[in-house]
Amino acid sequence: MTERRHQRKFVRTFFTSPTALQGEDDSAKMIRRAAQLRGLEAPDVWVPDNEDATAPSMRDEGARNIIDVVAEGGAEFPGEIHPRVVWHRDSPATRYQGFQHMLEIADPDNGASEHIDGFVIPEVGDIDDWKKADEFFTIVETEHGLEEGSLKMSVIIESGEAELAMGKLRDEMGKDTNNLERLFLLVDGEVDYTKDMRAMTPTGKLPAWPELRHNTSRGASATGCIAVDGPFDDIRDVDGYRERMTENHAKGMLGIWSLTPGQVVEANTHPLPPKEGSWQLTVGDQTVTLTDEGDVQAYEGDRLSLEETGDGYVLRTPGGEQHLDEDELREELLDMAEYVPSMDDIVDSMEEFEAARDAGTGAIAMEQATTLRFGDVEVDISNDRMWDEATYQAAMTPIALFQDVYENRPDQHEELAEMYGESVVERATSVGK
Amino acid sequence: MTERRHQRKFVRTFFTSPTALQGEDDSAKMIRRAAQLRGLEAPDVWVPDNEDATAPSMRDEGARNIIDVVAEGGAEFPGEIHPRVVWHRDSPATRYQGFQHMLEIADPDNGASEHIDGFVIPEVGDIDDWKKADEFFTIVETEHGLEEGSLKMSVIIESGEAELAMGKLRDEMGKDTNNLERLFLLVDGEVDYTKDMRAMTPTGKLPAWPELRHNTSRGASATGCIAVDGPFDDIRDVDGYRERMTENHAKGMLGIWSLTPGQVVEANTHPLPPKEGSWQLTVGDQTVTLTDEGDVQAYEGDRLSLEETGDGYVLRTPGGEQHLDEDELREELLDMAEYVPSMDDIVDSMEEFEAARDAGTGAIAMEQATTLRFGDVEVDISNDRMWDEATYQAAMTPIALFQDVYENRPDQHEELAEMYGESVVERATSVGK
Amino acid sequence: MTERRHQRKFVRTFFTSPTALQGEDDSAKMIRRAAQLRGLEAPDVWVPDNEDATAPSMRDEGARNIIDVVAEGGAEFPGEIHPRVVWHRDSPATRYQGFQHMLEIADPDNGASEHIDGFVIPEVGDIDDWKKADEFFTIVETEHGLEEGSLKMSVIIESGEAELAMGKLRDEMGKDTNNLERLFLLVDGEVDYTKDMRAMTPTGKLPAWPELRHNTSRGASATGCIAVDGPFDDIRDVDGYRERMTENHAKGMLGIWSLTPGQVVEANTHPLPPKEGSWQLTVGDQTVTLTDEGDVQAYEGDRLSLEETGDGYVLRTPGGEQHLDEDELREELLDMAEYVPSMDDIVDSMEEFEAARDAGTGAIAMEQATTLRFGDVEVDISNDRMWDEATYQAAMTPIALFQDVYENRPDQHEELAEMYGESVVERATSVGK
Repeated sequence: MTERRHQRKFVRTFFTSPTALQGEDDSAKMIRRAAQLRGLEAPDVWVPDNEDATAPSMRDEGARNIIDVVAEGGAEFPGEIHPRVVWHRDSPATRYQGFQHMLEIADPDNGASEHIDGFVIPEVGDIDDWKKADEFFTIVETEHGLEEGSLKMSVIIESGEAELAMGKLRDEMGKDTNNLERLFLLVDGEVDYTKDMRAMTPTGKLPAWPELRHNTSRGASATGCIAVDGPFDDIRDVDGYRERMTENHAKGMLGIWSLTPGQVVEANTHPLPPKEGSWQLTVGDQTVTLTDEGDVQAYEGDRLSLEETGDGYVLRTPGGEQHLDEDELREELLDMAEYVPSMDDIVDSMEEFEAARDAGTGAIAMEQATTLRFGDVEVDISNDRMWDEATYQAAMTPIALFQDVYENRPDQHEELAEMYGESVVERATSVGK
Repeated sequence: MTERRHQRKFVRTFFTSPTALQGEDDSAKMIRRAAQLRGLEAPDVWVPDNEDATAPSMRDEGARNIIDVVAEGGAEFPGEIHPRVVWHRDSPATRYQGFQHMLEIADPDNGASEHIDGFVIPEVGDIDDWKKADEFFTIVETEHGLEEGSLKMSVIIESGEAELAMGKLRDEMGKDTNNLERLFLLVDGEVDYTKDMRAMTPTGKLPAWPELRHNTSRGASATGCIAVDGPFDDIRDVDGYRERMTENHAKGMLGIWSLTPGQVVEANTHPLPPKEGSWQLTVGDQTVTLTDEGDVQAYEGDRLSLEETGDGYVLRTPGGEQHLDEDELREELLDMAEYVPSMDDIVDSMEEFEAARDAGTGAIAMEQATTLRFGDVEVDISNDRMWDEATYQAAMTPIALFQDVYENRPDQHEELAEMYGESVVERATSVGK
Repeated sequence: MTERRHQRKFVRTFFTSPTALQGEDDSAKMIRRAAQLRGLEAPDVWVPDNEDATAPSMRDEGARNIIDVVAEGGAEFPGEIHPRVVWHRDSPATRYQGFQHMLEIADPDNGASEHIDGFVIPEVGDIDDWKKADEFFTIVETEHGLEEGSLKMSVIIESGEAELAMGKLRDEMGKDTNNLERLFLLVDGEVDYTKDMRAMTPTGKLPAWPELRHNTSRGASATGCIAVDGPFDDIRDVDGYRERMTENHAKGMLGIWSLTPGQVVEANTHPLPPKEGSWQLTVGDQTVTLTDEGDVQAYEGDRLSLEETGDGYVLRTPGGEQHLDEDELREELLDMAEYVPSMDDIVDSMEEFEAARDAGTGAIAMEQATTLRFGDVEVDISNDRMWDEATYQAAMTPIALFQDVYENRPDQHEELAEMYGESVVERATSVGK
């Protein structure tokens, strides 16, 4: 894997706050409040947003608010701080304004500079546009006596041009004429991307853009950056937010934008393995979690029913009726049932594999067994999954994420210990090292 | 958004007609008839097809037929005229034949030239192959005293090479050695693409190629071109054609090939917002439109039933049975119900946002409320959607499309007025300017 | 279509075997057994795997085992032989070790060289990394007096970098400074790719990676290579393996990794058209094969029921109930029913089209008709599908594959004759030439 170049190897949460509100006693109210967040409510990356979240007329004041609030509270803030400044591939005036705000915010004389980890550049275009932004970072650094490349640059992918640029980035990084190694987050911005692509849906809902998310994740993987998905507008819909994250994780996009501290909590915890393992059963396109009754996992949906006859079983699903003997039934159910391992289970499996490997064995079978119950009928199932070095390495991803969180977010130690128990946390932080 | 460089910013319809039929009294019969199309039956781009739709032995006659028909009827034709000539990335002889036909058709002495807006080049390969075609356009232009770059070039993407070329196009446009700014439409050709990719399906049906369509739409977005999907063979299947278009629109691909005037009508109207808004309810993977009973929207499917009990509700779906109190029920239904706004609704929302913005407010909540009826049980739901500048811009796409149509297709004014009523048309043509 | 440069134009199967097992009397046991495979159990490409399948400490012995086994049995082996050596984009030491193993295995003095068709290079990175591997091939060839470019190179795509490299390959092939025309297979390696992308799923199952597979297939199409999917771990799940292949075929990825001789048989036969045609009916998201009762095709699922009333029909599906007259019913059923043609049917259609074309007709209608039975109700349906040159060419893919198999795999002639009957085989091998 191309090495991540920065302190954080994983970023779960990207939380934006408006920098200046019109008509409030304290226009910095929102960022002042955000700067107080701690623990699971505090994001990995906090983004005082001097672009879309803040009215155009308020952005100079917004830049000053960032300085005030970060100078005061930045030292104590547990995540990284990356203000978003204005930028547009089609507007030199906007780019110059963004540059001026960066110069001001990063000026050590203003007191916030040492707590600023980088800046977020929206609305980038093709790779030459990315280089213009990078050049401004370099000038800001040299003007203020900062080390070249020390300010991280994150970009919002919200145009087809920028999506294509991610395929060229690897060829450009490392050239003498730029400092693109400063790149940190590749963040999808689906609202503006939808506009740029001129896409439309009957209800006005955003398209799902699976290819964009794949390409962003791939771009991050190829260049040592970190992929982050855009905002999920329907704040009320917690299940939808979680489903989106599960989809993203399967694409290697482990971070997501958060619009509220409630979303931050969801997005900080969802990528971590669960406290308890569980069994799932999939019938057709529908997956339900089975009810853990101790020794038995009970199915309580109504899409599958199982009946014992004299000489076998009748299995009914929306797909039809099957008459099966015991072995056939077991095969059928093995295809439908899956185990979702807990943090503890994953650590167990990894340790078991490590021991086998140390003893000279390259691959071992891990057994997953349980008893399923459908009404009155119980069936034992058992499955062996082969683990080799590659399986082990792939299973390491959630653990590496956890370890990155643990190392960089001491403010979350207490909540993590509450979630998992001390001993699981301890094992998870030491496995695989 | 990268600016579209040509008169039409949107193209809904790409209609091909065979240029010369064997064994007919008038071999030009089909294009002669097509040249008469007007209003919603007339495409935005008409393509006298001297390639696949015309037998190889008839193509010289086809080129002459194009000249005859366009010289006679081109001035009156309401859409643009872009003949398709022969071309193949692997055949110099085919390329030379295509060049000769272009030279002949665009010759002002032959009388059709002034009504020819460009040519369609099929079977292009990598970017160097596109440049060969562009060079022939330039030679045709200089030979005939036309302005360099005045003939638009559209290409059919029907190979993996051409798909990849769309990722390189932006780097090549604007170089002194080509006139690739003439590029206009990027059109997918799924039949030949399937052959080139050597894909196969059990029934012989075409694969859906979602990634190709994404990449074409992205290529168009990044270079100021317009994305058009390939032919939909099953002419009988109007619902299927509409579903394909809805899918395409969510990808930013707003144009589609049409094989008959009937398909032209469908493809000219489907991208426009509906006359009347409607409510939809999605249960599992199935979406149904609710029946508008005035104040109430009635669900008439059989995948969901709702029962009122003494202390709450029982909601039954194929996913199972839920016992809910009134608030929980509302939440559940809010996740399932969606409103499809009418043209009038969209204009309303845009005007409301414009007014708020002018008054200094950056974001406002738009309420969508209705009463749902399931059998005897009625439930009121209401949802707020936040509109900010980005939402407004994204909502602009269907309106901008309508305005482009209205400006460029006066022959459709009457039918549009019939469809929407004069006042809606008037508001839609003036909003957002 | 960009020409394939090597003897095999299609590769169905890529079968790996560990080269050296620890603690066995004969550490070469597995490859010795694999070298004996013949007929449908023998893969198109056999890969003695000196990388992941073999413990790191055993790899020098593994290289020697390859030499022993291939020197002895290579001449008789019916498929091509492509050992996988070690390689890693991030490790010069690993690359050097892979180079040394290649030098040794390809040394004519060691007796295996003439039966070695190429090598498989895993864990490649960006295009410059591919060039490093190619350079080692060239050195191996010149050191051993082999023709430059005569050893084929296949790569495993298991990183985002390598996925992007496939988009650049076409620009690099043909340069004087490399011999990248030796490239043969582009093989996805989803386990390590998942690790490189840092993707994760709740159950630990591999993500489906549709975009990766599309991009690999496209890369192969654009460069004359052959696309092969990665291993399907759940050896027990034959249906799942077949579904994966059907999905892959629709992407133009006609080859797949096999882990056992049983999987080889499945993957050698699945891409070939079936012996018997069959009818399918799709209701919602579920497709079932109808039961062939001679003149009638019977539906035995329970998602659709049909009832005859005095004046028409009632059609019930999970989507609701429809009252239809006979014509409407036919339309409805035509949308749901599809025919899966047999090898014989495809040859028939092609011959029919060829005859029409020779007689000067460019397009003909092929009729598909049958009687469907739902309980007591029977309905005749009939559909015309237009065939033109493009349809004919696309239909050629499974036939061309069959012809490639027939030409290159005489050891499978007997089994193919058993499968299809001599006369079908004969017609299929001569059509379209």
